[in-house]
Amino acid sequence: MAGHLIAVDWGTTNRRVYLLDEGGQVLATARDDRGIKAMPRSGYLSETASLRQRYGDLPIILAGMVGSARGWIEVPYLPCPIGLGELAAGLSWVEPGRTAIVPGLAHPDGDVMRGEEVQFLGAHASGLTTGGGLLCQPGTHCKWARLEQGRIGQFSTAMTGELFALLKSHSLLAEFLIGAVSDDQSFRDGVQDGLSGRLPRDLFRVRAAALLGHRTVSQSASFVSGLLIGHDVGGVGFDQGEQVSIIADPELGGLYASAVRIAGGKSQIIDSQAVFVSGIAQLWKARRS
Amino acid sequence: MAGHLIAVDWGTTNRRVYLLDEGGQVLATARDDRGIKAMPRSGYLSETASLRQRYGDLPIILAGMVGSARGWIEVPYLPCPIGLGELAAGLSWVEPGRTAIVPGLAHPDGDVMRGEEVQFLGAHASGLTTGGGLLCQPGTHCKWARLEQGRIGQFSTAMTGELFALLKSHSLLAEFLIGAVSDDQSFRDGVQDGLSGRLPRDLFRVRAAALLGHRTVSQSASFVSGLLIGHDVGGVGFDQGEQVSIIADPELGGLYASAVRIAGGKSQIIDSQAVFVSGIAQLWKARRS
Repeated sequence: MAGHLIAVDWGTTNRRVYLLDEGGQVLATARDDRGIKAMPRSGYLSETASLRQRYGDLPIILAGMVGSARGWIEVPYLPCPIGLGELAAGLSWVEPGRTAIVPGLAHPDGDVMRGEEVQFLGAHASGLTTGGGLLCQPGTHCKWARLEQGRIGQFSTAMTGELFALLKSHSLLAEFLIGAVSDDQSFRDGVQDGLSGRLPRDLFRVRAAALLGHRTVSQSASFVSGLLIGHDVGGVGFDQGEQVSIIADPELGGLYASAVRIAGGKSQIIDSQAVFVSGIAQLWKARRS
Repeated sequence: MAGHLIAVDWGTTNRRVYLLDEGGQVLATARDDRGIKAMPRSGYLSETASLRQRYGDLPIILAGMVGSARGWIEVPYLPCPIGLGELAAGLSWVEPGRTAIVPGLAHPDGDVMRGEEVQFLGAHASGLTTGGGLLCQPGTHCKWARLEQGRIGQFSTAMTGELFALLKSHSLLAEFLIGAVSDDQSFRDGVQDGLSGRLPRDLFRVRAAALLGHRTVSQSASFVSGLLIGHDVGGVGFDQGEQVSIIADPELGGLYASAVRIAGGKSQIIDSQAVFVSGIAQLWKARRS
């Protein structure tokens, strides 16, 4: 059977190429590390030429980060809800009828995707989703989407995988994260503990908010600091109106005081050197040996 | 007034030395970067000798990570609740009456501290805490403690600061975290969003659990993966019994399926390449140009 279409799932780090026949069956597939990070912007034209040399003089359709500001051509996000037809109508043509880039999606709540929209809509189109309309794509950035009558409605992203990688590579926990991951009791204990939170999701939305212009880059550090301190304070569980003594310098202490206030508590900031000295002096007085 | 005691708050990265008089007043203080990371184990004896050379032939009391496995001598954690008297009784004497290390504390819920116990008990002893018994020490690892009649009862740690540093240095968010942090609207928005979570705390407990023998190092990766995926799944908010379609390889998909099940949902795992191909084929069919 002859090739009909070359499709490329072109991500940040990797690229997967498919040669499809007219019925959508895969005739050939190849994966390499020529993700957009490895590509100069001037290199895409020769890359598509080389794909045609290899697979035949066929139309090429590209999805993923290739359509981002760091890719070949920045293709504006399309709004949700959106179905296959609307996405197809929004294809960005590099060469009309010959080479197209699939646009990414933006959600008004402040989230974006590039590439996953193809899988989500494909899951519905293929009939592989026998259940409800909630879909999940785990990975570095885990994507969740809710399909409504075959169209992508709500979606959100959590940087779960990246957070894990960060913790594994760079954090205090690194030395504790050397074991293999499996669906064992430890894993389930972790799930149980984790169910009430949502930090990974909130973190990802920082990037989306900056990309979508909801928040400037210069505001992001404040926001993330507030996010983390809010999670911190929110997890403590103090009573409304209760007083918190914050042992810190005025700057960091002030941030915590603000968070405590927002959470319904009161606070005072106490100088840490003063209380250390006081403690050590009392301790010395109380010594036995 | 003559020096009476040399006190050292000896942390991982930094060290602060205080020369105190008999009334607990500070006569001199100095801070340097000779934290335990910069110290060979054999160097502590000459360090204390050099402190005496500088400040007088006085007793020396050391608090903080100097009493950890990576410090001078590993001093076992003492249990909570604990007050100043009990902590003083538990001082670990390197040289009786001359050189002592303050023990750290362990909480049965699975948390540890070394050094902060001095500040917390000092805050109470000094009368500087005019409010209730809940205390907070923000920083790389934010410590919260609840004092009960002057004794440290509950305490917990969140790796809030470290998480922020990780995100700032190594994450996808790094480029968005270049602004200064202040108590502005962005910060407050972040607090508001963060209030319902507790991930930073859960993460820190991974280390404490390993240190306290509640979980082996080889189980930690599983636990953290479960924790992050649990936060992820818990933040999505699907209905009980609802079906989730997970587009993933069987390994990662299986972990998500397990988490969805624990959260009260059902799931199926769908091959991501199959749905990509299906989606791209449908998209091509639906094209307009």
